[in-house]
Amino acid sequence: MARENYEEQLDRLTGLLATMSREAGAAIRGASVALFDVDRAAAEAVVAGDAVLDRYRAEAEARIPEVLVRHQPVASDLRLVVCALRIAASLERMGDLAVHIAKVVLMRYPVGVVPASAVPVLTAMADAAARMAEKAAVVLATRDHLDAAQLALDDDEVDAAEKRLLSLLVSGWPYGVESAIDLALVGRYYERYADHAVNVARQVVFLVTGTIRL
Amino acid sequence: MARENYEEQLDRLTGLLATMSREAGAAIRGASVALFDVDRAAAEAVVAGDAVLDRYRAEAEARIPEVLVRHQPVASDLRLVVCALRIAASLERMGDLAVHIAKVVLMRYPVGVVPASAVPVLTAMADAAARMAEKAAVVLATRDHLDAAQLALDDDEVDAAEKRLLSLLVSGWPYGVESAIDLALVGRYYERYADHAVNVARQVVFLVTGTIRL
Repeated sequence: MARENYEEQLDRLTGLLATMSREAGAAIRGASVALFDVDRAAAEAVVAGDAVLDRYRAEAEARIPEVLVRHQPVASDLRLVVCALRIAASLERMGDLAVHIAKVVLMRYPVGVVPASAVPVLTAMADAAARMAEKAAVVLATRDHLDAAQLALDDDEVDAAEKRLLSLLVSGWPYGVESAIDLALVGRYYERYADHAVNVARQVVFLVTGTIRL
Repeated sequence: MARENYEEQLDRLTGLLATMSREAGAAIRGASVALFDVDRAAAEAVVAGDAVLDRYRAEAEARIPEVLVRHQPVASDLRLVVCALRIAASLERMGDLAVHIAKVVLMRYPVGVVPASAVPVLTAMADAAARMAEKAAVVLATRDHLDAAQLALDDDEVDAAEKRLLSLLVSGWPYGVESAIDLALVGRYYERYADHAVNVARQVVFLVTGTIRL
């Protein structure tokens, strides 16, 4: 009976983390709209919305150790605490990175940050990042290591796109140093976002299988 | 008796975190030597040495929940788990950021990354970052919120220096876009390093006082 209650609590916790993942996905999609459409309202919404993820993280952090100590923990439960806290931290950080992108947009507004020649490569990063947040939510629900492996492939795509972006910027970029730095940083934010999404999936797999390899 | 044993375990845990903090300090000092002296061996040592911090983090993560579950935890112990895991995560990440700086050096070697005109501002960042890691180790030992407040001041210095660096890069930087991007990213790595050092101090204060404000 106590154990059943424990499973229920774990499911609620996983559900909270999946909700965080969808929020992080909404944040990066909003930031990408702001970036490509030079949409100030979208950027401001991302900045304002970040408090939601911060609250969820606090809620997860309060709940995770309580789930543990109310029950006789076994070794895999200890691992769960560490993994769940890492997942919550990564998801909150993904929100922060979306905010960083939104703030670059606000800093340059009404001037756009992305010249036409950089749209394809940054769109590839933005789409992959948004996809990864959705997939991370799926992995949290299914705890399926094949779903998790998908995220590593998306991450490779983001890394490759970041390399293409940097090549573009250093090959006679005609929009000046400030523009190049803005875009290099935006590229880095997407890349870090993707890394954290992979980390979420990796922690879930670790939780289920005890091995970290994807 | 059990409680005494618990305190001992906590002290060992804090000691491990303080060791991590000193390792993170050594890493950023090594990365800064590599950066300013164009010293390949120093850069390689930072990259190779990062495994130590990764191992410490794994050790901390294994030990933290065990300390908790072997004893009757009270509310502040639950907080301790979350804080200690956050601290371990920040310290490991500080090592990663030092590695990122070292890798920029290796990528451009034997060409130096920092032209003379950027040395003062980057030295300010490097010195403050190294100082902050040492202070974080002190805070872990003393758990004194006044020591912790010091780190916020250093962090302001790093943020101000990063702004100066970016201004320098966008005001007719004569070394090309690639150089500007390298330096903007190096500046960001120092800035993130400093943020994590502040986070370490903040978590310690939270642990002791129950409030997060510095």
